[in-house]
Amino acid sequence: MLMWTVKEVVLGVSTLFVSVELISWFFYRWRPKRTINEVHFFPSKEVCVEHIFSPSLLDLCSCPLPHGIETSFSRLLRHILSASSSLDLCIFAFSNMILCRAILKLHHRGVIVRVLSDKDYIAITGSQIGILRKAGICVRCALDSVYMHHKFAVVDKRLLITGSLNWTLSAVHNNMENVIVTDEPNLMQPFIGEFNRLWEHSNKGKYLEASDLLKSVEK
Amino acid sequence: MLMWTVKEVVLGVSTLFVSVELISWFFYRWRPKRTINEVHFFPSKEVCVEHIFSPSLLDLCSCPLPHGIETSFSRLLRHILSASSSLDLCIFAFSNMILCRAILKLHHRGVIVRVLSDKDYIAITGSQIGILRKAGICVRCALDSVYMHHKFAVVDKRLLITGSLNWTLSAVHNNMENVIVTDEPNLMQPFIGEFNRLWEHSNKGKYLEASDLLKSVEK
Repeated sequence: MLMWTVKEVVLGVSTLFVSVELISWFFYRWRPKRTINEVHFFPSKEVCVEHIFSPSLLDLCSCPLPHGIETSFSRLLRHILSASSSLDLCIFAFSNMILCRAILKLHHRGVIVRVLSDKDYIAITGSQIGILRKAGICVRCALDSVYMHHKFAVVDKRLLITGSLNWTLSAVHNNMENVIVTDEPNLMQPFIGEFNRLWEHSNKGKYLEASDLLKSVEK
Repeated sequence: MLMWTVKEVVLGVSTLFVSVELISWFFYRWRPKRTINEVHFFPSKEVCVEHIFSPSLLDLCSCPLPHGIETSFSRLLRHILSASSSLDLCIFAFSNMILCRAILKLHHRGVIVRVLSDKDYIAITGSQIGILRKAGICVRCALDSVYMHHKFAVVDKRLLITGSLNWTLSAVHNNMENVIVTDEPNLMQPFIGEFNRLWEHSNKGKYLEASDLLKSVEK
């Protein structure tokens, strides 16, 4: 009788541990995955990125640039184009035409794009901010600081892209730069909050729509 | 006999699970903790930071700045001053005298400080690079890119500080900027690798010691 009792106790204990193991395993397997922690360094080699905009063009594009090569820039481009619902961009200098094309593609796809930029840099030679505005994308400018020097984007409120890289041709292909891509909530959430704070500020008249500023520059 | 065999098997299985649980617990308890994921936004209010350099001065400093207030800048300063063995700094523009004082303090404390900077920006008005060199800190300059535009530091090879913030007075107190502080290995390790790669490059004659460059500028 005692022997059976001992066996039952042992069986009970082992069953308990097996259950804990299985529950832990399921919890680990099904909890939200936090897997993206990438760092990309620049300068990035200039390669053809047509296939990132249109995958079917991979073997058809006849431009003279190298084809089918992954670079820091092409990975950055893929992350930006992965947006399916929203893109919040806070950028000091924006003159890179390929990145502008990516933003326009997102806008035409129905992604809600909001852009915050610097009051002085929206009007520099080659700036793409006017093109975004003309396409109907809402761009606002920080007016109450010396420079709005951020260079970050939040994709679908799930992915943070941030670093030293301005969205210019020279920064991408000539400078030593870095870009972090992460979905770590403790890093991403403060940037979402900061973007919303800066964006909301515009309602208090401390920012102008870029179109108004461009008009005043034209005058 | 069969009964004993079953019991032995059950005991064996339960012992196995208990062992796995204990090993997992010990592994979880004793593995390096990854707890730092901070984001700091600027501009930062100008406050007294004397007590960060000398904690005993908290109630003694009579400067006109506000005292005892934590800001983004004071937190950045604390992280930098937490270095006990090494500080690797890769910075585009460095003209902030308080941050220069922090670096000199680390150097005098025996911390091995290595600084990589931009060839054009080491000679701008107010640059602190010459002061670091005169104190005996090794500073190298990237010569084979348009701009060495990084703004990151690695403290004791355990903490990454990176973002949009140049180490200037204007960036800290006037601009909209961000700084990430993290010990996430997947983010930190690539920066350690990039710093070492850029630093080693100097052995191949692609960089000059800043002192050489300053001499050539003086000429």
